[in-house]
Amino acid sequence: MSIAPSDVVIMMNGLPGKMGYSCAEACIARGMTLADVALTGADFAGQATDSRIPKVDLVAGGSEDAEKRGAALAAQCKKDGKVLVAIDFTAPGAALPNAEYYARHGMNFVMGTTGCDYEAIGKTVTGAKHGAVVAPNMSKQIVAMQSVLEQAAKDFPGAFSGYDLSVIESHQKAKVDTSGTAKAVVASLVELNTGGSVDKAVAAVEKVRNDETSLNGADGKLGKVPAADLPGHAYHTYALTSADATVTFELRHNVNGRSTYAEGVADACLFLAGKAQAGFPRAKFLGRRRRLFDMIDVLSEGAMS
Amino acid sequence: MSIAPSDVVIMMNGLPGKMGYSCAEACIARGMTLADVALTGADFAGQATDSRIPKVDLVAGGSEDAEKRGAALAAQCKKDGKVLVAIDFTAPGAALPNAEYYARHGMNFVMGTTGCDYEAIGKTVTGAKHGAVVAPNMSKQIVAMQSVLEQAAKDFPGAFSGYDLSVIESHQKAKVDTSGTAKAVVASLVELNTGGSVDKAVAAVEKVRNDETSLNGADGKLGKVPAADLPGHAYHTYALTSADATVTFELRHNVNGRSTYAEGVADACLFLAGKAQAGFPRAKFLGRRRRLFDMIDVLSEGAMS
Repeated sequence: MSIAPSDVVIMMNGLPGKMGYSCAEACIARGMTLADVALTGADFAGQATDSRIPKVDLVAGGSEDAEKRGAALAAQCKKDGKVLVAIDFTAPGAALPNAEYYARHGMNFVMGTTGCDYEAIGKTVTGAKHGAVVAPNMSKQIVAMQSVLEQAAKDFPGAFSGYDLSVIESHQKAKVDTSGTAKAVVASLVELNTGGSVDKAVAAVEKVRNDETSLNGADGKLGKVPAADLPGHAYHTYALTSADATVTFELRHNVNGRSTYAEGVADACLFLAGKAQAGFPRAKFLGRRRRLFDMIDVLSEGAMS
Repeated sequence: MSIAPSDVVIMMNGLPGKMGYSCAEACIARGMTLADVALTGADFAGQATDSRIPKVDLVAGGSEDAEKRGAALAAQCKKDGKVLVAIDFTAPGAALPNAEYYARHGMNFVMGTTGCDYEAIGKTVTGAKHGAVVAPNMSKQIVAMQSVLEQAAKDFPGAFSGYDLSVIESHQKAKVDTSGTAKAVVASLVELNTGGSVDKAVAAVEKVRNDETSLNGADGKLGKVPAADLPGHAYHTYALTSADATVTFELRHNVNGRSTYAEGVADACLFLAGKAQAGFPRAKFLGRRRRLFDMIDVLSEGAMS
C-alpha cells in the first residue's frame, strides 16, 4: 500500500498561514510535489507565496477561479498518473465548503482544520471515489500518547486511586485556554486516578503564560522552554503522586514549533495517497471500502517516516 | 467478590526481612489480622519480631514445627470462618518448597519472591483448593505502567521512529545491575521507537549510583532523591526526542522505599481472599476455575484501595 512520494501532488489549502508553509515544506522534503494553486481566504486571494516554497497562486475558496483551477489540476494529475491530495488548514467556516469542493473534484484530502463540523465533513466521502484523513491533532506521537492513555483508563480504572494528580503547562502568552491535548490527557488520568470531575481537573491545570517562568521551567516542574520558542510552544507535565508522597509518576510532552504536526500531515498524505492508489481496499473485518480515516489509522499502518 | 479485611488472616513469611515488616504493616493498616506464626530461614528461626508489629513466632521453613504450626493455623482459620493468605517474600531457594507447604495446608498465597521457578510454583495450585497471586513486581502502579507500554508497543510500533531514546536511572549505591522495571520499559520503548536491539538499549541506560548526583537529580534529568531515601530508592527517566529536537516525550517514575510494593501486596491479599471466599468462580470466557493470578488480574478487578 506504500506509494512513491514522487507520485503524490499536494494542493496546500490555507496558505499563506504558518501551518500551510510548514506542511508544504514537510511534504516537499519527503519528495512530494506542490501544486501551483491553492485555496485561501478572501483577504489573501491574489497574493503570492514567499520564497520558502515554490510559487503558489492563491485563489479564493468559493470563487469561479477556484472551480476552474481545481478541475484543471485534478484533470492534469489524472493524466499524469499522479495522486492528488489536498491539505486543509483553513478556517472553521471554510472547512465544510472546502470538503464539498474536494468532493466535486474528486480530491483526496487531509484536514487538520479545527473547530469545524467533523460529522458533516466525514459524510462528504461516503459513497464517493475519494477519501480523507480528518483529525484535530496531526502529531502522530501526541495522538499515539492520547490513544495509549485512553486505553489505559479503560483497562485499569482506579489503578492510581489515592494518588494526587497535578498538571502544569506552558504555552505562548497569546494562548488563553487550556490545550485540547491537555484536556484529553487529563480526562484519561482522572479515570486512572480516583475518578470524579474532569472539568474540575481541567480547571485545576496550572497555566504558565509568563516568559520568565517558561524559560526557567517553573523551577523544575516543566521542561525549560528555549527563548526562540517562547512565541510558539506547548509544554505539559502531568504528575501522579502517592498519598504518602513516596511514589511519583510523571509524563511530560514538550513541543516547540509546528514540525511534529507538519510531519504527521506528510505521513497522512502518503498514507491516504497509498489507499487511493490501491482503490481504497475493503477493510478486513468491516467488509466495505473505507474512505474516512484518522491519525490512529495512519499510526496503525506502522512506521512510515 | 469483595471481602471484609477483618475476615482475612495473614501469615507473613519472610520476616524479619524488610519487605516482611512493610507488608505486615500495610495489611494491618487495612484491617487484616496478622497470624502469630511465620516461616523464616534457618538463621532467623526462634527469633522474635520487633515492636513495629504484633509478636510473631518465626519457625524455620521445612521444620516439623512449621508443619505443626501451619496445620494448626489453617484449622483455626477454618473454624473461625476466616480466609488465610500467606505472603511470601523469602528467598529464591525457599519459594518452591514454601509453595508445596502452602499446598499441603491449603493456604492461599501471595508471592513476591523473585528469582524463583514461577512455572513450578504455578503448578502447585493446579487442581487444588487454594489459589495464588504470583508476581515479581507487586506495585500495582508500576505493573499498570509496564502493561500499558507493552500494549502501546503492540498497537503503535514505530510511532516514535526517528526519535532518540535516552534513559537514566538512580538507585541506592548497593544495586549493581539495571532494574527489571527499566529493562521491561526499555523493551517497549524500543518497539515504539525505531526497533532494534533491546540489549543494546538496556546497556546504554545511564546508571546513577552516586549520592551527590542522586540528590541534585542529575541536573534536572532525574527527580531529586531526598537524602533520607538514598539507601532505598528507584528513580527512572525515559526520554524520546525528535530528530530535529523540537519534541520531547518524557516518562518518569520515582519510588522511595517499599510502601508501593507493600500496598500492592495488601491489595493482592484482599483480591485473593475474595476469590477464595467465592470458591474461585469460573472465569467468564475460560469456563474453568482460575486459581493462579498476577498483578494484572488484581488491577483489572478495579480500584480496591
